[in-house]
Amino acid sequence: MVDLIDDFYAVIPAGGVGSRLWPLSRADAPKFLHDLTGSGHSLLRDTWDRLEPLTGSDRIAVVTGRAHRAAVEEQLPGIPDKNVILESEPRDSTAAIALAAAILHRRNPDVIIGSFAADHVIRVLPVFHWAVQQAVAVAREGYICTIGITPTEPAIGFGYIKKGEMLSVVGAPEGALVERFVEKPDLSTAKEYLQSRDYLWNAGMFITRADVLLDELAANKPELHAGVLELAEAWDDRERRGPAVDKIWPRLEKIAIDYSVAEPAAEKGKLAVVPGHFDWDDVGDFASLAKLNSHGRNDLAILGENARILSDAASGIVVSHTSRVISLIGVRNIVVVDTPDALLVTTSEHAQRVKHVVDALKVTGRDDVL
Amino acid sequence: MVDLIDDFYAVIPAGGVGSRLWPLSRADAPKFLHDLTGSGHSLLRDTWDRLEPLTGSDRIAVVTGRAHRAAVEEQLPGIPDKNVILESEPRDSTAAIALAAAILHRRNPDVIIGSFAADHVIRVLPVFHWAVQQAVAVAREGYICTIGITPTEPAIGFGYIKKGEMLSVVGAPEGALVERFVEKPDLSTAKEYLQSRDYLWNAGMFITRADVLLDELAANKPELHAGVLELAEAWDDRERRGPAVDKIWPRLEKIAIDYSVAEPAAEKGKLAVVPGHFDWDDVGDFASLAKLNSHGRNDLAILGENARILSDAASGIVVSHTSRVISLIGVRNIVVVDTPDALLVTTSEHAQRVKHVVDALKVTGRDDVL
Repeated sequence: MVDLIDDFYAVIPAGGVGSRLWPLSRADAPKFLHDLTGSGHSLLRDTWDRLEPLTGSDRIAVVTGRAHRAAVEEQLPGIPDKNVILESEPRDSTAAIALAAAILHRRNPDVIIGSFAADHVIRVLPVFHWAVQQAVAVAREGYICTIGITPTEPAIGFGYIKKGEMLSVVGAPEGALVERFVEKPDLSTAKEYLQSRDYLWNAGMFITRADVLLDELAANKPELHAGVLELAEAWDDRERRGPAVDKIWPRLEKIAIDYSVAEPAAEKGKLAVVPGHFDWDDVGDFASLAKLNSHGRNDLAILGENARILSDAASGIVVSHTSRVISLIGVRNIVVVDTPDALLVTTSEHAQRVKHVVDALKVTGRDDVL
Repeated sequence: MVDLIDDFYAVIPAGGVGSRLWPLSRADAPKFLHDLTGSGHSLLRDTWDRLEPLTGSDRIAVVTGRAHRAAVEEQLPGIPDKNVILESEPRDSTAAIALAAAILHRRNPDVIIGSFAADHVIRVLPVFHWAVQQAVAVAREGYICTIGITPTEPAIGFGYIKKGEMLSVVGAPEGALVERFVEKPDLSTAKEYLQSRDYLWNAGMFITRADVLLDELAANKPELHAGVLELAEAWDDRERRGPAVDKIWPRLEKIAIDYSVAEPAAEKGKLAVVPGHFDWDDVGDFASLAKLNSHGRNDLAILGENARILSDAASGIVVSHTSRVISLIGVRNIVVVDTPDALLVTTSEHAQRVKHVVDALKVTGRDDVL
């Protein structure tokens, strides 16, 4: 067993719907509430189970929408009530993570927080834990530390982090400065990145002392920082929390933490990275989901406890959330998602375009199936 | 308007399920009860409407299973009760057509019957009527006359009829003897057939004096003939019909009329053909259904009154028998059939294999969706 890490608190922002996984993911059943790996647990629960050995069950906070409170508490029966941080509306990742940081910092000024998405897949826990342990060691030194995944293929769907100078932090032999962030590359660039060993996938994980994060935010986005502090100050008073949320939250700037904190910190030499040598997937679309659940190129991945599938020379993925018999004949790299009120048929190749369908459904007023 | 034809009686065998159109066609909702053309009527009703101008509503008989009685009467409200001939179980086309012939012959010894499948599609009525008129004229001379469809492409999915010597029958300028029947050809043979103008598609239509048909059957299948006559003799007596059916029907040989009557008659020079220069389709599978309902190669055909389809670069056919939103992205020549308890996803190319799925469902005991 791995040891608990002193003063370490995990923060799980559980916000995004996952439009590219429609009609599986919905506004009222977002991606993180689904079992997408056949583990028998939701992605949120798997995320909790990965972190709990490092924090214990009383040091994991979830930031989520009010509508998901019941579902989150059902998934995480051990979560203390005070660690469910409810947003009245989505305000992007800076507001969510900074609010959690400010609340936790008031409770413990030495707290180190680690932010981990609720809807990613990681399966090799000891290697994950080793990366977090290193990242916490780096964070104790005052750096904001991200975990960058070591690439295993020239992926063009992810952003990259370029490693810089090595740090010499005790307990973090692989810690390095971040030289810069890179947007999604083209294939030949991605191949160069893979060969160089200097580039890591940006998985959006940040480990930092709460005070360091808040100071960096204060430097870059003072209004947002002030709003978050004001909100945190009222948070643990039941009577003041509601009015404070109603007053402050809707005015907070919507901005991703990559832009408000990470990139500016990188420019100042305050952003570090440790490599994560573990399997990782953000399950961004059905092509990714198919890959994650199949055993080979010509395999048909099946998701759904009560799936009744009859397959003849079919490959790809079928998600069955009804009791219907589903027959697939001669369709390759197919994506079939069968839910009670909506059916999707596409191929892995077109998986990214699912988002456009969701947009089209919005525009044409068919919100009943979103 | 076309004139009624004296002594002409249409017989519509409405038996086959249409396994290749599963899960649209089912044991309890066979192909002929569906609207497959968007006409607003079932194929059975369309067949009736094609024939009624030639026979009137009191001279069309339907031979069908007992289970379909209510559905047939709902589709054909004008059909006299005595013209609904119910089978206790399917015994193939000879038993069905010969029983109708024997019953109708007892009612009118001069009757000429024409047998037309309940589940084919023909849309240009005057040309169809002209072919039937010619065929009846040929039949009056004592021939068994079929209508062969003039090919418009080198089809390999149909059997062919080779025309022989021209007849000189008044009222049937295109009547000819049948030289022989040919099984489904390969493509190069089919191309030769198309160019030669001597070969017609076998659409399974037979027009003949009832006495001629029965005599031919007596010569080739005397037991089957005797059984049918015994049954017909009891038929119009309400008290005797039931016991006679129970006793005789299950013992009748199961054989297609092509083998029991048509081919032997052809060998004796008693089988004639008139060409049908009309559009015709037996809607044998979903590829055929897609073609029938689409307006071009890259078109997506949609069947289903309440279909809610969102299509992005999709072609093929979608049959919607639920109220679900169906989203198709980037799938070409796709076949999607969405019913409350079963879903099929395949492509036009594999449409013939649907039958194997039905077989597999039978073998694995999933009869609930057949």
